[in-house]
This record gives sequence, structure tokens and C-alpha cells, in this order.
Amino acid sequence: MRARVIIVPRPEVLDPQGRAVAHALSGLGFAGVRDVRVGRIVYLTLEDGLGRAEAAREVDRMAKELLANLIVEDFTVEWID
Amino acid sequence: MRARVIIVPRPEVLDPQGRAVAHALSGLGFAGVRDVRVGRIVYLTLEDGLGRAEAAREVDRMAKELLANLIVEDFTVEWID
Repeated sequence: MRARVIIVPRPEVLDPQGRAVAHALSGLGFAGVRDVRVGRIVYLTLEDGLGRAEAAREVDRMAKELLANLIVEDFTVEWID
Repeated sequence: MRARVIIVPRPEVLDPQGRAVAHALSGLGFAGVRDVRVGRIVYLTLEDGLGRAEAAREVDRMAKELLANLIVEDFTVEWID
């Protein structure tokens, strides 16, 4: 079973990495970029023994306890298989 | 128009960040994790003037010239709207 957890800065939080990428793209001549936000993506391969519902609870806990900083970041979980 | 570029370490490349996350998850008591890979995700908001085909070419160039390091990383582009 594989999931991916997408972690992004909350909309109201400054994203210096996104600003830096936007600035660099502009410097390279890419003119049509209005906004850039940079986040992390974590691919998790889980043991097959777990049911999907239990696995979903586990991944949710992993995100909250380790992967994301909920003060400044949001996360979403997507299942790949 | 919004796209997201997902950048991940190539399968044959060591991913120390993924290793560190796997180790930390194990230390927190999460037992069912077989593998972890950590990548970046870049959300790009583009000016509406571009057509989708031209925008796709632009984003592909952004990924190759700046966002991804193709020696050790792969990227995929997903369109959100």
C-alpha cells in the first residue's frame, strides 16, 4: 500500500522558498509566473497487513506527529495503491 | 492556471531524508512502514494568457532549468486547473 503526504505552507504564512523560486524563475526569463509555493511530498510504502481504514489513521498520525508542522503547514494524504 | 511539479529522488539514488524520516517514524512506534521517499512539490500559478500547450512547455522548461536536478531527481507535472 502506498500513500503520499503533501505538505504545504498555510496560505497565510510567508513562503520564503516559494519567493526565492519565483525570483529565480523571473531571472531566467520566465515571465508568466504569478505565484509559487514550495512544499514537501513524502511517499510512504506500508506493510500490506493493514486495512485501508487503519492505514489511513496511521498515516494521519504520522503527518500530525512528525511530517507536518501544523502551526504553519497543511497536509493532505493521497493514496496511490 | 495552476500546475504542481513533483520532484523526487530517482529510485536508484540514496535518499538520506527518506531514511531519516523512516528512522524517526520507527522511533515513534510506527511499525508498518516499509519505505519512505521524500521529495519537493512546487505549486505554480501562471498568468491566464498562455494556452495550456504553451504553459505545459514552459513548466517543463522551468522544471528542467531550475526546479529539478535531473542527475539525481525525476519530476512530473500535474495540472490542477
